[in-house]
Amino acid sequence: MKGTIVTIGDEILIGQITDTNSAWLGNEMTQLGVEVVEILTIADKVTAIHAALDTALAKSDLVVMTGGLGPTKDDITKKAIAEYVGSELYLDEALVTRIKTYFDARGIPFTEAHKAQCYMPKDAKSLTNEMGTAPGMLFEHQGKHILSMPGVPYEMKNIFSNSFLSSFAPMQDSALKIYHKTIKTVGMGESRIEEKISDIVAELPADISMSYLPSLGTVKLRLTARSQDDKSDLVENFAARIVERIPELVFGYGKTSLAESLQETMISQGLTVTTAESCTGGYLAHQLTVVPGSSRYYLGSIVAYDYEPKKSLLKVSPATLEKYGAVSEETVKEMLVGLIASMGSDLGIAISGIAGPGGGMPDKPVGTIWMAWGSKSDVRTRKLNLSKNRVKNIEYTAVAAMNALRKFVKKYE
Amino acid sequence: MKGTIVTIGDEILIGQITDTNSAWLGNEMTQLGVEVVEILTIADKVTAIHAALDTALAKSDLVVMTGGLGPTKDDITKKAIAEYVGSELYLDEALVTRIKTYFDARGIPFTEAHKAQCYMPKDAKSLTNEMGTAPGMLFEHQGKHILSMPGVPYEMKNIFSNSFLSSFAPMQDSALKIYHKTIKTVGMGESRIEEKISDIVAELPADISMSYLPSLGTVKLRLTARSQDDKSDLVENFAARIVERIPELVFGYGKTSLAESLQETMISQGLTVTTAESCTGGYLAHQLTVVPGSSRYYLGSIVAYDYEPKKSLLKVSPATLEKYGAVSEETVKEMLVGLIASMGSDLGIAISGIAGPGGGMPDKPVGTIWMAWGSKSDVRTRKLNLSKNRVKNIEYTAVAAMNALRKFVKKYE
Repeated sequence: MKGTIVTIGDEILIGQITDTNSAWLGNEMTQLGVEVVEILTIADKVTAIHAALDTALAKSDLVVMTGGLGPTKDDITKKAIAEYVGSELYLDEALVTRIKTYFDARGIPFTEAHKAQCYMPKDAKSLTNEMGTAPGMLFEHQGKHILSMPGVPYEMKNIFSNSFLSSFAPMQDSALKIYHKTIKTVGMGESRIEEKISDIVAELPADISMSYLPSLGTVKLRLTARSQDDKSDLVENFAARIVERIPELVFGYGKTSLAESLQETMISQGLTVTTAESCTGGYLAHQLTVVPGSSRYYLGSIVAYDYEPKKSLLKVSPATLEKYGAVSEETVKEMLVGLIASMGSDLGIAISGIAGPGGGMPDKPVGTIWMAWGSKSDVRTRKLNLSKNRVKNIEYTAVAAMNALRKFVKKYE
Repeated sequence: MKGTIVTIGDEILIGQITDTNSAWLGNEMTQLGVEVVEILTIADKVTAIHAALDTALAKSDLVVMTGGLGPTKDDITKKAIAEYVGSELYLDEALVTRIKTYFDARGIPFTEAHKAQCYMPKDAKSLTNEMGTAPGMLFEHQGKHILSMPGVPYEMKNIFSNSFLSSFAPMQDSALKIYHKTIKTVGMGESRIEEKISDIVAELPADISMSYLPSLGTVKLRLTARSQDDKSDLVENFAARIVERIPELVFGYGKTSLAESLQETMISQGLTVTTAESCTGGYLAHQLTVVPGSSRYYLGSIVAYDYEPKKSLLKVSPATLEKYGAVSEETVKEMLVGLIASMGSDLGIAISGIAGPGGGMPDKPVGTIWMAWGSKSDVRTRKLNLSKNRVKNIEYTAVAAMNALRKFVKKYE
C-alpha cells in the first residue's frame, strides 16, 4: 500500500512555520506498512488542492492531508475536497451540539465562524477530534482513500491515532513486508563510521538497504528490508554485527533519544544527576527533563548565567574567575564540585562557554566551551572548539555533555 | 519568479527526521521575491529525482534541491541531476585539494568516499561550502535554474546565503511586488481575535489577504499584498488599525519571538530577571537564553526538579511543602520570593506543576500548573489547567509565563 502526505498552507511555503506534521505522519504510516512515496506542500488554493489530489491519487492508495480545516475564513480545504469528490455540504447538527457543549464548559461564545465549521460533506466519514473543534474527514474515491485533518499538530495526532486507526485496518493489504532497524550512535562522524563497518555493509543482500542519517553530534544507522518474506531475523543479525564493531558509539535503537538512554542507565544503576549550566542556559536541563520519569534520577540544575550565581550558588572562588575567567577548565571544575556539594547528587555536569555570536576574545573565540563531568572524587574535563552559530553550539554541547556522562558511567573512558 | 523546493531523503518520508530546511528556504526565497509554489519531498531514487525535476521545472523558474550530497554511498543526487541535464562528471582536483587541506587540519584521514564527492558535473557552477565537504551546484537548464545543496542544515544555509546569493541577482525579474506584514499576538485564540477585528479585515481590498497562524499560546496575523504596485503603505495602515484594536495582545512583528520581545523590554527598562523552574525543567531558561544578548538582563535559573533544592536553594519552608504540596499557590509564591532573594534580581518567575504523563492526583490532575511572577513586593499568581501531553504542557507554560511577565512590566494587568 502506497501513501502520499499533502500539507496545505501558505505559511509553510513562505517558511513562517516548519511542517512537523509530515514527519510524524511519515513515521506512523511507515509503522502501519504504508510506503510513503511523496510529501507535498501546497498553497491554500482550490486549484492547488485539486492538482495535488490528482498527483497524489495517481501514485498512492491513501492520501493524508493536513491543514486548512479550522474556524477562520482562510480555510478552504473542506470545500475543495468536497468539490473534488462530488459531495455536497450539509449542517451536521450533532457536531453543532458537541462544539457548543465544549465551548459552554470553557465559557467561550459559539460564533458564526464556529457554525461554519459544522458543515460537513455528505460522503465523508466524520472522525472525532478530542483536542479541538474541527473533525477529521475520511473519503473513499475511486477505490482509494483521502484523509483530511486540521493542521494543528496535537489535534491531527489525536484524530489519526484514535478515530482514523479504527477505520484503517480494513483498507490495508500487506503484499510487501517492510522491516526497519535503526541503530543510534553518538561521538563519531558518518564517513568514519562507514569506513569501520564497510565490510559488513558490503555483505547486505539487495533487498536490505543501509542509510546514514547524521544530525548534530549523532548518526543514525538505518537498515531497511523490503521483501515478500519476513527478513526481520536477518536484519537483526546484521544490526548485531554492526553494534559489536562500534559498541562504545551505540546508545540505543529506534526512537530512543540520548537523554532517554542516559535516564535508563542512571535509574538502573541508582545514580542521581544534577547540572550547572552557563552558556547552554537550561537547554541541557530541558533535554533531560523533557523525558517522562526524569524526576527519578535528575534533581535539578543551577543555570548560572551571570557571574554572581557562579559565586553565590556554585561557590566558584572569585580568585579563579579573576585569574582564569568564567570560560576555563578551572572554573568548570569548581562549578562541578560546588554543584555536587550543593545539590547532593552522585554525578554532575558543568558547562561554561561562549555560545556567540558576540563575546569572543582573541584567546577564547566564539565556540570555546569547557565542560566538566563526573563525581565528587573523579572529575573529568574537556574543551570543545565549536562554531560561530549560537543555537548549534548550545545543542551540540548538550549532546557532547550527555555523551561524556554516558561514557563515564559505562566506563568507556 | 516562481520557485519549487525539492527535499530528497527516505529518512524524511519515513518520518525519522523533520525537514526544517524547507521552512528556512521558503522564508529566504520569499524575502528574495520568489513565490514558492510547492515543496516536494521525494525518495533517494534516480526515477523519483527525475520525476520531481519534470514537475518542478514545469511550474517554476528556480528549483532548489536539498539532500543526497555527501560522503556516504546512499547519495545519488549528483548523478541523477547530471544525467537529467545531460552533463558528464569529472574529477575536480581543486576540490580534492581543498577537502584534503580541510581534513589534514582536523587530523581526519581522506578516504575513497571523500574522493568520490569530488566528481562534479561539467556544466554545474560549483558553490563553495564553508561548513563541510560537499559543494553546492547550480545548473542552467532550458532557461531555468536548478540549485542542489547538501541536506545538512548549516551547510545548506552557508551555501545558500553566501555562494548562491551572489549568483542569484542576475536571474531575478520582479514583475509582481509581494509585501508581508506579520503581527505577533499572545494570550487569545484565533477565532476570538478574528471576531474582534472582523470589521477591519472585511475592508481589505482583493489584492491584500489575511491569514491566522496559531501555535501554542500565540497567533500570528499575516497580511500579504500581491500586486503590480507597491502596497506597503496600505498594508502598514491596516496593520496599525488592527494593533490599535488589540494592543495588549501584540508583542512584536515579523520573526520577533516572545523571548526577544521580553528581552528588549527588560533591557530598555534596566530590569534583571531570574527564573525558578520545577516542571518546565529548564525549558523557560532555554527559551530566554537562546536569544543572543540575553546575559544583559537574565541572571540565571534554579531548576529545582526535586523537593530538596526547592528547600535548600529556594528556601521553600518544609511546612508549606508538607501542607500544600509542591504544586500549590503557596509553594510557587515562596519559590519566587526565595529566588529573588537568592539571585538578587528585580523580577522573577516561579513554576511548579505536573507536566505528565504520570504524577496526577485526584485534586491535582496532570496539567495542573501553578506559576508566580513579579517583584519582591508585588507577587502575582495563576493556575493553569492544561492537557495530558508533557511536551505541550512544558511549552505552553513557558509561553504563559513569559506573557505574564510581559504584561506585568507593561502594566497591562
